[in-house]
Amino acid sequence: MALRARALYDFSSENPGELSVKENEVLTLYSEQDIDGWLEGTNSRGQRGLFPASYVEILRNDAASSSVNSCSTSGEPRYSNIPAGGFESKTENFSKPSAPSFGTFTVPQHQQPSQGSDDDWDDDWDDSSTVADEPGTVAGRYTDHEGNGPSTYRVSTSSSRANAQQQTRSSATVGRNLNRFSTFVKSGGEAFVLGEASGFVKDGDKICVVMGEYGPEWQENPYPFTCTIDDPTKQTKFKGMKSYISYKLTPTHTHIQVNRRYKHFDWLYARLAEKFPVISVPHLPEKQATGRFEEDFISKRRKGLIWWMNHMTSHPVLARCDVFQHFLMSNSTDEKAWKKGKRKAEKDEMVGANFFLTISTPPAPLDFQDVESKIDGFKTFTKRMDDSSLQLNATVNEFARKQISGFKKEYQKVGMSFKALSQAFEMDQQVYSSGLNLAISFTGDAYESIGEYFSEQPSKDLDPVMDLLALYQGHLANFPDIIHVQKGALTKVKESQKHVEEGKMDRTQAEGIHERCNIISCATLAEIQHFHQIRVRDFRAQMQHYLQQQIAFFQKVTGKLEEALKKYDNV
Amino acid sequence: MALRARALYDFSSENPGELSVKENEVLTLYSEQDIDGWLEGTNSRGQRGLFPASYVEILRNDAASSSVNSCSTSGEPRYSNIPAGGFESKTENFSKPSAPSFGTFTVPQHQQPSQGSDDDWDDDWDDSSTVADEPGTVAGRYTDHEGNGPSTYRVSTSSSRANAQQQTRSSATVGRNLNRFSTFVKSGGEAFVLGEASGFVKDGDKICVVMGEYGPEWQENPYPFTCTIDDPTKQTKFKGMKSYISYKLTPTHTHIQVNRRYKHFDWLYARLAEKFPVISVPHLPEKQATGRFEEDFISKRRKGLIWWMNHMTSHPVLARCDVFQHFLMSNSTDEKAWKKGKRKAEKDEMVGANFFLTISTPPAPLDFQDVESKIDGFKTFTKRMDDSSLQLNATVNEFARKQISGFKKEYQKVGMSFKALSQAFEMDQQVYSSGLNLAISFTGDAYESIGEYFSEQPSKDLDPVMDLLALYQGHLANFPDIIHVQKGALTKVKESQKHVEEGKMDRTQAEGIHERCNIISCATLAEIQHFHQIRVRDFRAQMQHYLQQQIAFFQKVTGKLEEALKKYDNV
Repeated sequence: MALRARALYDFSSENPGELSVKENEVLTLYSEQDIDGWLEGTNSRGQRGLFPASYVEILRNDAASSSVNSCSTSGEPRYSNIPAGGFESKTENFSKPSAPSFGTFTVPQHQQPSQGSDDDWDDDWDDSSTVADEPGTVAGRYTDHEGNGPSTYRVSTSSSRANAQQQTRSSATVGRNLNRFSTFVKSGGEAFVLGEASGFVKDGDKICVVMGEYGPEWQENPYPFTCTIDDPTKQTKFKGMKSYISYKLTPTHTHIQVNRRYKHFDWLYARLAEKFPVISVPHLPEKQATGRFEEDFISKRRKGLIWWMNHMTSHPVLARCDVFQHFLMSNSTDEKAWKKGKRKAEKDEMVGANFFLTISTPPAPLDFQDVESKIDGFKTFTKRMDDSSLQLNATVNEFARKQISGFKKEYQKVGMSFKALSQAFEMDQQVYSSGLNLAISFTGDAYESIGEYFSEQPSKDLDPVMDLLALYQGHLANFPDIIHVQKGALTKVKESQKHVEEGKMDRTQAEGIHERCNIISCATLAEIQHFHQIRVRDFRAQMQHYLQQQIAFFQKVTGKLEEALKKYDNV
Repeated sequence: MALRARALYDFSSENPGELSVKENEVLTLYSEQDIDGWLEGTNSRGQRGLFPASYVEILRNDAASSSVNSCSTSGEPRYSNIPAGGFESKTENFSKPSAPSFGTFTVPQHQQPSQGSDDDWDDDWDDSSTVADEPGTVAGRYTDHEGNGPSTYRVSTSSSRANAQQQTRSSATVGRNLNRFSTFVKSGGEAFVLGEASGFVKDGDKICVVMGEYGPEWQENPYPFTCTIDDPTKQTKFKGMKSYISYKLTPTHTHIQVNRRYKHFDWLYARLAEKFPVISVPHLPEKQATGRFEEDFISKRRKGLIWWMNHMTSHPVLARCDVFQHFLMSNSTDEKAWKKGKRKAEKDEMVGANFFLTISTPPAPLDFQDVESKIDGFKTFTKRMDDSSLQLNATVNEFARKQISGFKKEYQKVGMSFKALSQAFEMDQQVYSSGLNLAISFTGDAYESIGEYFSEQPSKDLDPVMDLLALYQGHLANFPDIIHVQKGALTKVKESQKHVEEGKMDRTQAEGIHERCNIISCATLAEIQHFHQIRVRDFRAQMQHYLQQQIAFFQKVTGKLEEALKKYDNV
């Protein structure tokens, strides 16, 4: 019997080889195995082509067999793109899934596993296909089918860190949060505060918060390094039907170049966001629906990745973590080594609640009142910074647009009018005015050039400002969740104190909660401190760069005008 | 019996002391004698005030007595503002007369004589009242009542030199132009070519055209001078009800300061335009309907007058002519001397046709084919220059507007956004970032300043360009008439040659026409040569000035940015 699928949504082909499908249309499949998120099939009119696997449901008698899972490390059923009854109600909570390669979504989505292709490094992912979320030791992930299964990263709501959700097994006297969608719960913060996290912390995993001049801070990376991102090159695969861009990464601590694709960054991002509940993992530059291979986009993405890499290598914790080191160092041609590291990262136990186990704090516990006031101050600060960054971004964006269109047009119109005047003057039949005519003509050209200068300038000074703002807008979107985790912990402390006073909890247990809240608070304040430090560093550098570019621009304009002025000397 | 007048048009009072009147409203007058073109009267509601004399007709039994004329030097009836039956039909050919002081017309109008006030130097004129056109030796001026009586100067049509109209008395065999409105006729060119002009040319009136490197040119002024225009001050008169601006003129050849009002310039302009048929008399800066006493306008008019004066003193013929010298030298406090010179100028016989009598030409007569080709080339040139000046003027005007509004706004928006960011950053509670916050705030201020620079700049560089273009647009409007006169003369030559061939004219008469056409051609080519020379001089200087100002502007912007950049040094 032919394998068939029913379209869940309309899909319009945008590239050769793709097949448009209509909702409810039944298609004949060649294989139920998707390639890069695409299935190949034939419609009733005999047309053959590729369509997104997530746009169809495979029709079969036995719904249970839909759970295609090549991963045997866990007995948990994995979330699949095959609806199995509950799919449609679930998708109501999220937007219609996008086509894997040319979709418009901007966040790594986890609703579409790479069925059975975990081990197939070369062919399993495209830029917008996603990686399998292999259930590690944290049980029950994605088993919840009431709406929070396929979560999304990097949305501007507070659900952006909703990855490391923990099913708690204990029944502590301090009550658990009833809202299982709360970031505090999902991040593992609650589980950790309630003493439910456990794991063996290797020496290499230990993360130190030290007391610095301005409060708790992450211990500096004793081996700081940076990493360059060069030469994005286009590669093709899948008989040339699918292409991708490969970036050359060269970390300064190895000096060995590795090739990485955007999807590798995406995979890394997912690991980091899952692992670190109170660290602001920089957001990746956004995906783009179309024109992925256009030079402008490639150049822009590369710049975004450079900023991202800069924030990664600048972060004392992120820079040193295993998965990032694996990403930077694993030889791109040695598939086995890569896969080994990839699996290891995906099985990392020290994620979410367990991450807090790895943190060692300064000897003196923090004054929670002081912490609370600092956190509240920071909350106010991030709100203001977010508002003013948005405003600046809008202004700068408009300013760039004006320079590219309006300013350019005005200067060029002036240039053209001067040239028209010089052309009229050339008809004067007077030999003694030819010098003037040439000079005016040159002035016209100068103004046309200045128009060009204006239109070229934003890419040199305003675009980098916007890139920086985009990165910081990502951080600012992370912090509400980070603050939420800390505030959740503090609430538990207050509750536990009350319980102790009411005799419902013994003092030791409350002290444990207090101690663990201290760990979360130290980590949160260290992260805030780190944020301020890189912010001052980045904005200082960026403002300097912007002003230097502006000065160079106005000097160039001045130089052009001086050149024009000289033409009148011997007129 | 009370003196009464009927309103011919609606008049809305715009200033204290003025009285609004409705068309056909009957007003009681205090006197039929207007003051500065204003009459004082009372309406039916008992309201008293001033209204323009030209807006009303005085009601009386004897229409003949309407011809109020204090000038006894001629027996010819003078054109008056009192309708005398034919007024209304005549005004249909022209626009409704404007209020004398606050009218919007931009040309000196001659339809309103200063009734009996010729001798009253202090009170006879306001800026927009006009001077009596005293009929001189040229008979019949303004006696034609068929529509071309009140002519206007400085309109962009070819009627702009329609002043020195001549009624011819001879009946030459070369036919006269049937179109008596033709510039050739009105300028006196035809009368001169036909040998109808006669007069005694004093040595001092002689004007030489010499053969220069590039063809005929005006003999240089052996005593070149310039004249400064300073300190426009507001003066009041008429019990403070009327005000005017007085300019201080200091010619370099006398070093004696004289005070002149716009109306004096206006009077002078009328004399010059009447006197010189083939000389492009620079147009005065335009009048303004309202805001005559606002600083901007006064400053702008002064600049316009400076340009005008520059073109007057630069012109070898205009600079030396008696009426201009009288204007520059007559002591403003010695009324008698002024009036004497004024009357003398108004009685000048060497105007129009007779002007050509004063011209002496180079010994070798011109080749008329060569002249025709040069004139045609110049005609093409003026058309192109007119088009491109108009285009440049529109562009520059728009560019100024953009800088004052759009550019300023964009830079200030950027400035404000930087300041908002610095204000947000000030909430960060981090001591180490205060330097950055101050630097960003300073950068914000710098961008707000740059916005101001942009809005202030056009008055420094674009406005002077527009002033220059306005002056040249005036010249370009003059040349069609000048060319017309020369072409008319050339046509007469061709006609006369034909007539000689046909035996209708004797050779001597034809030679006279040829000779007189040579005089007109020499003068025309000399004027064209002069135009090109000052054009090259003016545009060279103006373009240099513009570029220098632009360079200074961009350097100022650069300096401001460098100042801002320095603030980041110790951050």
